[in-house]
Amino acid sequence: MGATKLIISALLLLLFLFISTSNATPGKKLRARHRPCKRLVFYFHDIIYNGKNAMNATSAIVGAPAWANKTLLAGQNRFGDLIVFDDPITLDNKLHSPPIGRAQGFYIYDKKDIFSAWVGFSFVFNSAQRKGCINFAGADGPLLQKTRDISVIGGTGDFFMARGVATLMTDAFENQVYFRLRVDIKLYECW
Amino acid sequence: MGATKLIISALLLLLFLFISTSNATPGKKLRARHRPCKRLVFYFHDIIYNGKNAMNATSAIVGAPAWANKTLLAGQNRFGDLIVFDDPITLDNKLHSPPIGRAQGFYIYDKKDIFSAWVGFSFVFNSAQRKGCINFAGADGPLLQKTRDISVIGGTGDFFMARGVATLMTDAFENQVYFRLRVDIKLYECW
Amino acid sequence: MGATKLIISALLLLLFLFISTSNATPGKKLRARHRPCKRLVFYFHDIIYNGKNAMNATSAIVGAPAWANKTLLAGQNRFGDLIVFDDPITLDNKLHSPPIGRAQGFYIYDKKDIFSAWVGFSFVFNSAQRKGCINFAGADGPLLQKTRDISVIGGTGDFFMARGVATLMTDAFENQVYFRLRVDIKLYECW
Repeated sequence: MGATKLIISALLLLLFLFISTSNATPGKKLRARHRPCKRLVFYFHDIIYNGKNAMNATSAIVGAPAWANKTLLAGQNRFGDLIVFDDPITLDNKLHSPPIGRAQGFYIYDKKDIFSAWVGFSFVFNSAQRKGCINFAGADGPLLQKTRDISVIGGTGDFFMARGVATLMTDAFENQVYFRLRVDIKLYECW
Repeated sequence: MGATKLIISALLLLLFLFISTSNATPGKKLRARHRPCKRLVFYFHDIIYNGKNAMNATSAIVGAPAWANKTLLAGQNRFGDLIVFDDPITLDNKLHSPPIGRAQGFYIYDKKDIFSAWVGFSFVFNSAQRKGCINFAGADGPLLQKTRDISVIGGTGDFFMARGVATLMTDAFENQVYFRLRVDIKLYECW
Repeated sequence: MGATKLIISALLLLLFLFISTSNATPGKKLRARHRPCKRLVFYFHDIIYNGKNAMNATSAIVGAPAWANKTLLAGQNRFGDLIVFDDPITLDNKLHSPPIGRAQGFYIYDKKDIFSAWVGFSFVFNSAQRKGCINFAGADGPLLQKTRDISVIGGTGDFFMARGVATLMTDAFENQVYFRLRVDIKLYECW
């Protein structure tokens, strides 16, 4: 019965192999709902152009409804204002910390009765630490909610084919001109 | 030969286990092309601001080409008009049914010779029945085609990490001001 | 020991089956990082409206910052200009080659100190060769970099549920009015 023992060993090995690999797909790691395969926390800083701060402004109103203009955020919770931005990303919550990348894209206020926005933007990195983009889209609202979740819809370079969820938190909001967002990026598909 | 029988049973069990689980990845369900893992049908209702209907309007022109303005949809099939919306979502095709969520985002008419648009928006839910967002993007055109397919590019909350296809159908189109879309959401990646 | 041989054969068959199928998920093919499951190269051609070329223009400025207008690209590297386009797609780099589809969507210049843009658009096909859409989003910048990577965030029809990366290269750039992009589409998720 030596052969039988051998066969039983082979069966066990096969079972082990099967269990240990059935969770993996080559080139791509999928994780359970509450365990991101990568997690990153950054801050970015937005200073909106108001007609007087051209030197410091990192964003500008480029679309507005009929009842508004482009140097003053619109009434009714800014409904209809489209803002383009190129904002510094920092590792901590200080505006003047050395930027590690740029947040580039747009947001568009989309609700009359409360602050709410739809966003499409990228985190663009080009340093020794990180190269590549993380692309985001989704509903950033209601803005007065403590945290809001948007989607990571793709990535390139170090973030090749990434998917996930990013939790946005308004960390500061001053004088109608400056705000700072904390972005907690949780990737659930990493290649 | 009792041991051999045992081994054969073990082999069959292993084969069964293998077949039954090879389709599954933990945390994520992938389905064959024609079998969505989740399907949802909703309607949403858009009333565009025309300079006179501020009380009822749910959307507004916020960008327009050089030859147009923001209270009248542009000539040449509205080419260049960018519209921001915050539209009620309903379960049936009645404008005054109780809204179960909001469709928020933008559409931008992108063709001179026929109606066609590019859309980026979210379905935002915050009720006992459903919480979270479904995020959409894609080409909604040509608009006179009976149905058009766009992409579900992500989701949050109850729709965590969703991907799929949404089939849009113009269910009503009245007086240059009102339209109603039927949205048939088919998710093929559900977590 | 004939039965043992049979069992060994069965084990080997099972091992083979296991190895050959463990990479596959039904309906979806996942590939390793450097091996796209589909690759497509196209060109598209953009002629921006400048107030005088209405007949030929395929795109138009529809949003602009306070300091600019809609018939002249803005100063400071066009920061804040939002352009809507409906551009012909060709198989080679000739503007007048028969178009095989349309590139439709928007780009928005998002940086003051260099050319850089955020894009959201679709390739729309409707011919005997190909039907359906490929949807793109991401940071197309810096534009003077030879190539830039954006994300394929979804697809419909022949490109059902596609995901991947598209490498953009500015193939020509003339007179502030015309540019041509080469798009090298690499899909890593094909259904």
